[in-house]
Amino acid sequence: MKQAVFLIQSPDRKGLVSGITTFFYRNGFNILHCQQYTDTCEGEYYMRVRLDLSDMELTRKQLEDDFSAFATEYGFRYSVYYLDQPQRVAVLVSKTSHCLYDLLTLNQEGELPCEIPLIISNHPDLEHVADKFRVPFFCCPIVNGDKASQEAQILELLERHLIDLVVLARYMQVLSNGFTERYPRRIINIHHAFLPAFQGGNPYQRAWERGVKMIGATAHYATAELDEGPIIEQDVERITHEADPAELKHIGSGIEKRVLTRAVRAHLEHRIITTGRRTVVFSR
Amino acid sequence: MKQAVFLIQSPDRKGLVSGITTFFYRNGFNILHCQQYTDTCEGEYYMRVRLDLSDMELTRKQLEDDFSAFATEYGFRYSVYYLDQPQRVAVLVSKTSHCLYDLLTLNQEGELPCEIPLIISNHPDLEHVADKFRVPFFCCPIVNGDKASQEAQILELLERHLIDLVVLARYMQVLSNGFTERYPRRIINIHHAFLPAFQGGNPYQRAWERGVKMIGATAHYATAELDEGPIIEQDVERITHEADPAELKHIGSGIEKRVLTRAVRAHLEHRIITTGRRTVVFSR
Amino acid sequence: MKQAVFLIQSPDRKGLVSGITTFFYRNGFNILHCQQYTDTCEGEYYMRVRLDLSDMELTRKQLEDDFSAFATEYGFRYSVYYLDQPQRVAVLVSKTSHCLYDLLTLNQEGELPCEIPLIISNHPDLEHVADKFRVPFFCCPIVNGDKASQEAQILELLERHLIDLVVLARYMQVLSNGFTERYPRRIINIHHAFLPAFQGGNPYQRAWERGVKMIGATAHYATAELDEGPIIEQDVERITHEADPAELKHIGSGIEKRVLTRAVRAHLEHRIITTGRRTVVFSR
Amino acid sequence: MKQAVFLIQSPDRKGLVSGITTFFYRNGFNILHCQQYTDTCEGEYYMRVRLDLSDMELTRKQLEDDFSAFATEYGFRYSVYYLDQPQRVAVLVSKTSHCLYDLLTLNQEGELPCEIPLIISNHPDLEHVADKFRVPFFCCPIVNGDKASQEAQILELLERHLIDLVVLARYMQVLSNGFTERYPRRIINIHHAFLPAFQGGNPYQRAWERGVKMIGATAHYATAELDEGPIIEQDVERITHEADPAELKHIGSGIEKRVLTRAVRAHLEHRIITTGRRTVVFSR
Repeated sequence: MKQAVFLIQSPDRKGLVSGITTFFYRNGFNILHCQQYTDTCEGEYYMRVRLDLSDMELTRKQLEDDFSAFATEYGFRYSVYYLDQPQRVAVLVSKTSHCLYDLLTLNQEGELPCEIPLIISNHPDLEHVADKFRVPFFCCPIVNGDKASQEAQILELLERHLIDLVVLARYMQVLSNGFTERYPRRIINIHHAFLPAFQGGNPYQRAWERGVKMIGATAHYATAELDEGPIIEQDVERITHEADPAELKHIGSGIEKRVLTRAVRAHLEHRIITTGRRTVVFSR
Repeated sequence: MKQAVFLIQSPDRKGLVSGITTFFYRNGFNILHCQQYTDTCEGEYYMRVRLDLSDMELTRKQLEDDFSAFATEYGFRYSVYYLDQPQRVAVLVSKTSHCLYDLLTLNQEGELPCEIPLIISNHPDLEHVADKFRVPFFCCPIVNGDKASQEAQILELLERHLIDLVVLARYMQVLSNGFTERYPRRIINIHHAFLPAFQGGNPYQRAWERGVKMIGATAHYATAELDEGPIIEQDVERITHEADPAELKHIGSGIEKRVLTRAVRAHLEHRIITTGRRTVVFSR
Repeated sequence: MKQAVFLIQSPDRKGLVSGITTFFYRNGFNILHCQQYTDTCEGEYYMRVRLDLSDMELTRKQLEDDFSAFATEYGFRYSVYYLDQPQRVAVLVSKTSHCLYDLLTLNQEGELPCEIPLIISNHPDLEHVADKFRVPFFCCPIVNGDKASQEAQILELLERHLIDLVVLARYMQVLSNGFTERYPRRIINIHHAFLPAFQGGNPYQRAWERGVKMIGATAHYATAELDEGPIIEQDVERITHEADPAELKHIGSGIEKRVLTRAVRAHLEHRIITTGRRTVVFSR
Repeated sequence: MKQAVFLIQSPDRKGLVSGITTFFYRNGFNILHCQQYTDTCEGEYYMRVRLDLSDMELTRKQLEDDFSAFATEYGFRYSVYYLDQPQRVAVLVSKTSHCLYDLLTLNQEGELPCEIPLIISNHPDLEHVADKFRVPFFCCPIVNGDKASQEAQILELLERHLIDLVVLARYMQVLSNGFTERYPRRIINIHHAFLPAFQGGNPYQRAWERGVKMIGATAHYATAELDEGPIIEQDVERITHEADPAELKHIGSGIEKRVLTRAVRAHLEHRIITTGRRTVVFSR
């Protein structure tokens, strides 16, 4: 997969598409996929370009330097990713296994393009799942309520393993601002409710009490504000009065796992640009 | 349609189903449809029975007296409805026509079993819709901010026309407690968001700002607390970042009309029992 | 709305995006929306460009001539539409009104950008609907089984009224090949099943007999092969064993009307390119 | 879980509900859940009763004898199951792992109430999955095209392990009539298309070629007629023209696994009664 993905964001103006696509054409690249979105409410332009690099005569360093100069001239922001460099993902869990299982099995089936060098938990319960898939498991409990030390331990693990993306797969601790700021737009959380409904704890019980007729789940980037980060993916299922809180939890688990893996997949394929509290998620 | 529907609610206890079904059997009725639900969280039992009255030897008065005595003995609450007595529905609107059109066309196609003797609005804009379907249209504007007088006017219209059910089909005024208490569990409102997300005004704009990936609508009984009444029906549709607030409104309109008509249909077919903030909605 | 839409189709090759977008840029146009799709299975490239014409210095004739020369040089096919020229739509119906009502009300609410100068039917039943919306109604019954004459009558009506698009809104006659070939990719039909399941007649009854757990509807371009034309839009709803054929029909009606209006809207907004039996439907 | 489930089927007639519920009441049982369905098209009545056996004074043998006599008197068919007797499930697979993983993980999480004493495959590929979950794996390849011997081998395994239910979790061989007749209504298959569309092989490729806008999966009981058995559960997802056959397969895998596990769960909870080609699937 000698391919590169450019994610570009710029105030909208005439000639942008023409300029960028001509840049790639002149340098001999074939554009495999070009996706655009103009936010007319805020006058902002977003672009995702996937390039074939197989015949590239430049080095990647040259390509980046040239494009960087070009971007400065036009005044837009961008980032570039290479698809032959798989990202390294750490999964954080607590006691619930369904999201973890789904991530690991999809990864093993080759459907989630990343490496998962470690699983971290504040509880020992899910070590057996990690063992099944031969992924190192680190148990970092919170001792005597000292969350700062525990987070420091986790951060050290993340750095030592050169982690690109942190996935909170039903990790039931709120991360400190200090933690989330170390991995901006690189921590994905799954909330077991259809945000912004039922922010905070115990959503299935509260959904039952409120008598809603559909329940859902939301994957979003974790930020300093709990459950307020940019939403990546959501899904719901219809329920009836017959579903009690335990059944809601069962149904919800199915939604959670598919919502989380879709969001992680979108991130790993570099299909997401965030803008304030919103995300632009390009299709596959 | 010589049929009756009994809606029954009782603390759960042994022998209830047997007792009730035997009552009907001994009196010679054929049970066409019997639906039950036991709320094990709260120990409460709910039943809907649809009876064939075509061979009934008793008068309806006698049936009701006998059943009433039986209910007192067993200690349960109930209500009874006859399907050959169509309910009378008043539709309240403001300036938006999609829900009104859907109610009127379904009614005309024979898919909404009720009479609609009048449409009431606080604006003159939708008189042409009422005219098309030959339904009397009453414009009750709020003059000099005197909402109390306006509501009194509306209440008088509802009483004079012997209204059983009030449908707020995008009526953009908040009703006073005095009003909602006059028609408990007999006012259905459509909220243009997926409650409890985005309670209050301007939900599509707020949904866009929050960057949700699905939008929805909620039909619920109006109560004194705004947007807090028991939910009858909800639905959602998937959206992408490309949908701006105007497009959300367009998509939302489609959801609103189908959610509202489904809820009204469930009410007219006596398939709903409310219990606190929750509804039991039996299937057709 | 001084805007133009270009729909472009070409064998995929390097430089295409750059070439086209540069053409528009050099001629001073602002690209409001540019959407692309590369069918890598068949090596074909599709593009939809929406242009702002408000500052255009060329005449439309000049623009078309220039672009035509450019297309010939590059060897691609295209078509161009102007959004200030509303299309003229004829609706064909039989006895069922729900799709017709939905088209007419959406059109009146300004949500379906077209003119509807006439409604044609093989039965007199729905004249009252046409009357409500003040649209001329033409009844063209099939007399003595002479379908050829009836179709000739309809075709004459379509031509005299300069019809751009024919919508079969539950028109229950199969059109002859001669008819469909006169309006290639300009006749949209709604099939009341989830194609290719239940092609042909009586789909709700057959769906009930087959015991499916979801029913649907399909909007497609009508071609010589019955129910085989390119699919534009589909939707489904979940059902249970409790829904009898009559209830399936009721639920299905709701699906049919929203599927048909979505498809018609996509066509009217020039968001569809057909390729063999498939359609590329660009998002709004 | 000292509970019993009775599944009852009978021509509809007056007094049936009353008779059955009174039978249980007189014998001192508490009905925990009673669900009914009257198929008015075919005049057939279906009932599912879940009983609390915790205070039972009869032996199970006595209960069954009494109920059997009662059923003979009333002339209805029934079957009875005890929830403290978990069913034994064999999973048959070929090379694709997603459905197998989902069954095993749900089972381990306690969400699929059964025992899985063995996995059988015609290929060795998925032994590693069985190993992870410590389930014996039997590889029964078809040698020299001798399918009869292979099926005999599998049938022997099923009998020796006292299997109640066979789950075809993407087992890519068509079973002989002789095989399916040995386990009537006890073999559940997942078909990777929205039946009856795309019966037979290669559905994702054919779905792409037909240009459908939604793809789905269907779980059904296997019968002698390929892909014609009674449908238990279906689900779909919306797709666009952008999804190529490989992406359809990816999306489809997610649908397949949730459809199959829902169907298996319904069977294990004794919520299904089959009637000809249809299933009555009671809610949880």
